[in-house]
Order: sequence, then C-alpha cells, then structure tokens
Amino acid sequence: MLDIVTQDTRNAYATLGLAKAAMTLIEESQLGPFYEAMGPTMQQSGGSVANTIAGVAALGGTCGFIGKVANDEFGERFAHDLRTMGVELALATAGAGEGRTGRCHVFVTPDAQRTMATYLGAANQLQPSDITDGLIARSEITYIEGYLYDLPPAKAAIAQTVAFAHEHDSLVALSLSDTFCVDRHHRDFLELVTNDVDVLLANETEIMALFRTDSLEHAYRCIAELGVLCAITRGPAGADIVMSHGVEWVAAADVEHVVDQNGAGDLFAAGFLYGLALGADPIEAAQLGSLCAGEIITHLGARPESDLEEMAIDAGLL
Amino acid sequence: MLDIVTQDTRNAYATLGLAKAAMTLIEESQLGPFYEAMGPTMQQSGGSVANTIAGVAALGGTCGFIGKVANDEFGERFAHDLRTMGVELALATAGAGEGRTGRCHVFVTPDAQRTMATYLGAANQLQPSDITDGLIARSEITYIEGYLYDLPPAKAAIAQTVAFAHEHDSLVALSLSDTFCVDRHHRDFLELVTNDVDVLLANETEIMALFRTDSLEHAYRCIAELGVLCAITRGPAGADIVMSHGVEWVAAADVEHVVDQNGAGDLFAAGFLYGLALGADPIEAAQLGSLCAGEIITHLGARPESDLEEMAIDAGLL
Repeated sequence: MLDIVTQDTRNAYATLGLAKAAMTLIEESQLGPFYEAMGPTMQQSGGSVANTIAGVAALGGTCGFIGKVANDEFGERFAHDLRTMGVELALATAGAGEGRTGRCHVFVTPDAQRTMATYLGAANQLQPSDITDGLIARSEITYIEGYLYDLPPAKAAIAQTVAFAHEHDSLVALSLSDTFCVDRHHRDFLELVTNDVDVLLANETEIMALFRTDSLEHAYRCIAELGVLCAITRGPAGADIVMSHGVEWVAAADVEHVVDQNGAGDLFAAGFLYGLALGADPIEAAQLGSLCAGEIITHLGARPESDLEEMAIDAGLL
Repeated sequence: MLDIVTQDTRNAYATLGLAKAAMTLIEESQLGPFYEAMGPTMQQSGGSVANTIAGVAALGGTCGFIGKVANDEFGERFAHDLRTMGVELALATAGAGEGRTGRCHVFVTPDAQRTMATYLGAANQLQPSDITDGLIARSEITYIEGYLYDLPPAKAAIAQTVAFAHEHDSLVALSLSDTFCVDRHHRDFLELVTNDVDVLLANETEIMALFRTDSLEHAYRCIAELGVLCAITRGPAGADIVMSHGVEWVAAADVEHVVDQNGAGDLFAAGFLYGLALGADPIEAAQLGSLCAGEIITHLGARPESDLEEMAIDAGLL
C-alpha cells in the first residue's frame, strides 16, 4: 500500500460520498476521479503490517515482508522504502488483470479526522503460491494482516502461511485490523484465533467484536481461556496485556505534542513482537511497543522517522 | 520540482559526499544511486516559486505558473498538485534529451538541518519559446525564480518574460533564491534588479551578496536608491520592508510550535505579492506574508495545509 494523503480543507471526502472517519474500499475505475478530486497530496509508503515491519527494522531487527505489488511506480517505491531499511522482501508481482499496486487515499480534515478510501489492487491478489516458506522458516514470529480476510484468494494464502509457520515452529501473530473486518469475517477469525494464533493484536472494539460481546472483561476472559497472548492497544490509555494468568496494564509513552495518531497500533505491534522474538516477557515487550508508538505519534505518517534502536537502548529496553 | 524527503538518521548525506545544510546540484546519472542511498522517502510537490503560487491559490488568489516538466509520473503529479488548487498552468513539456522532471532530494538529519541535492532536469530546459504571454498579460505581478539564472537557456527565457511583463504593464518581482546563486551570477542579477525589477524578495545574506557588502544598512540604502520595493525575510525576527522613503519592520507570526522552517520565505512571498496585487500598501502586504509564513512552519513541507484565505479573513488581512 502507498498512502496518498491530502489536507482536506474543502470537504472533498464528502463530495466523493465517503463516510467520515471510516475506511471505504474503492475500485480501480475510481482511482482517477478520486485522485483528481482530492487536491495536492503527500505520498508515503504505508499498509498496517508493512508499517510494523518498518518499525522492527528501525529497532535493528532482522525481518522480512511477503506481499504483492504491481509492476508500476508505486510498487517500486513501496519495495524501495522497505528494502532500504534492511527488510528482506518476498514480493510477488501482479500479472495482467491483477490490478495496480494498492493505495490508500487519506483525507485529513481540519478537525484531525482521517477519512480513507482504499484500493487494494494487487494486494487483493495474494495467492497461496505467492507464499514462499524461506522467510517463514527463519522467523521467530509470522505476523498476519487481518485485512487480508477481505480478499478471497488471500484467505487461502493465509492458510498456506499458517501451515508453513506451524511446520517451522514460527509463532503465528494476527492483527484484527478493523472492527468492520472482524464483523464481516467473524467465524473465520474466531476459528483462526482458536486454532492457529499464538499472539493477537487488537484494540478494545475489535476484541469485543471478535467475541460478539459488549463486555471488555468478558472478551479478555474468552481470549485468555484460548491461551492466546493478547495485546489490546488503548491509545493514550496505554495497553492491556491479556495473559492466561491475568491482565496487566502498560502505560503509553509520555508524549508532549501528539501530531498524528496514525500508525500508533502498527508501531506498538513492532515493539511488542520484536520484544517477544528476542525472548522478553510480554510486559517488557509491551513497554518496547509503547516506546515505538510514542515515536510515531510525534510526526505525520505511519513510518518511523527516528532511530528506534537508539531510543530503545537509551530507555534500557534493548 | 518534486521534493523527495528522507529522515536521515544514518548520515546518508555524508556517504553521498554532500555538504551539510547546503544545496548541491546533481546530474541525471546520479538519480538512481541517490534514491537508493537515501532510504524511505516522503514525496510532495515543491519548488520555491511553485510553493509561492500554491500559497497565492490558498489565499483565494487568481494565479498561474509557467515552467517545464517531463512527460513522466513526477511531472503529472507536479501539475496535478497545482491544477487542483486552481492554478492556471502553462507547463512546457521537455522533449527527447531534455531530461526528466526536476526533483530535490532532501536529507533531514536529527538536528533538524536540511541537506539538499537538486536535479534540475526539465526545469533546466526552459526556453524563450516556452514563455507564452497570455498569463503574463493578465497578471498584476510576474514573479521570477532567481535559481533559473543557473541555467543558460532559462536566462534567455527570463529576458523574454521580463519583456512580456513590461509590454503588458505587469510588475516584475524577483526572488534572489540563494546566496551562492547570487554570487555566481552577480553582474546579471544586479543588471536585472537595476533595470527591470519592481519588487525584490531576499533574505539578509542574499541582499548583502547582491551589493557585495557586509553592511546590511548599506545594502538597504542601495536597493532603496534603485527605487525597488524590497522585502527582506528574517525568519523568527520578522521582515524588513525597504521602501524609497525608509525601512519598516513587520513582526513574524506568533507560532507556538515550529515544526519545519522550510518554505517560510516562499509563503511570505505568497502573502506579500498577493497583498500588493490587491492594492494593499507594502506593510499590510507584509503582514499577510507573515501570516502565510506562520502557517507553513507549523507542519512538515512547503505547501500550505490550511485554508489561508479563511485565516487571513479571520485576521482582518483580507
């Protein structure tokens, strides 16, 4: 995914029929009119799990990324931005008729709300045959993007990924990504979490959606009973770490001036998963997650701009 | 110009042999290696006078832009970003062998310094025949980029522009752009300012370089004697407006949290020139300039992100 961000002072999002502060999927035929309507843009690589992997790389971690892009300018740029951070890439290239590289049109209104229109494109076409087990075999943790459940072929690709991870004793981590996504694929998610997932990342509404409950306490009990280690990010209120023996709370980083909350969850995941991969206990790992989330909200965009490794060393977390 | 910005935590600029905090011109053959070495990037339209014109458009002004881009993705994006703001474009397209669309590689180091490597490309190829007089004929003010003096064919294009402006009673404004640029083309600049310029925009070192003096007072006297209205931007210290009857000072906008000073001079020029075009006196025009400069330093990038027209109306300046 490439993020195409506009400062929407003229309510272009409304003219395009987008629901404010929500994410709407759009088709290839809408790309031209959307781009034309959105005005001047800032462009930067994005995508939830790709942001997380960029965070792991900035922490000094050894990591890789499996995905699918088209053979176009955006695909090249996406690959460049991860490769030059030291991320090992296993990117499949979309064939004819498989669309262009995915992009997310972000409309930031003066009230700091973000309205998104996402074209999945090539990412939509991830197939089981695109999943090579080389990277997975060498990984302590294999992290899966929940959004992929919106994509029928990609669902089979997830099954393939999980099979490889089990075969190579790689922990399976999952991001629930989005409440609507959890609602749309409720049974699939529950099955995956129950049978295959070791580590779950979610926020409060997502975990409640997963267990179809309006009690957070009940949701925590359900996930604990499944024996899944779960980190619930709560924005400025920090994170709850749900373990089989109970729930512990980890504070958010102390940030003086929050510029943009976009990417906070993705970067928490980076620190949390990297900490776990290094053998830290979940609380230490969550502290590393908070540190990373704290960096990303001090600037626009969901890719780290500071040397996270140095920050973590200074904080005694690496 | 497109700005390609990286947060340079690994001193990539030094590896590439760039002098810190300075602007270095690079060739087309260096684009690949530079992009590869610079790591992940954020991309946004830029260019000094183009930033100014974007500011005038954001103020609600009627304005246009003459320049040259290549028939490539960057050229399309540059045009899109001005066109969708309502700027009338008279962009020439570079032919075979005239290079790609210009771009500026910006390395932001953790100490907030900016090191730049600029590929002029197609902008380098602006010819007298690319200057059409339609836009100039309808303009109160024709604003010229001093950087263009680095480019032999563009120098002739400037002469053509000035001729059209005089023919149509459009005021000629000039940005001195850069001290090194003034040094390189000292005699040409002095001749242009003496014979053809009505309004000059510069900072303190540039105006002293123009008159080869280390006395700011002397430089102010020289420009006043030429009868050229001159705005000297002084960053947080505001701006000096040098008029034939004396110098007046205008305060900078009161900004709580400065994020990025890039574009402050360009946006001051937007407010100052738009104010003059509307018939404001130089001091009122400079106040509008300070308001615009104050907006641009509150965020990354040199293109306005707020509705400057609304801000100016609220401040009683429009």
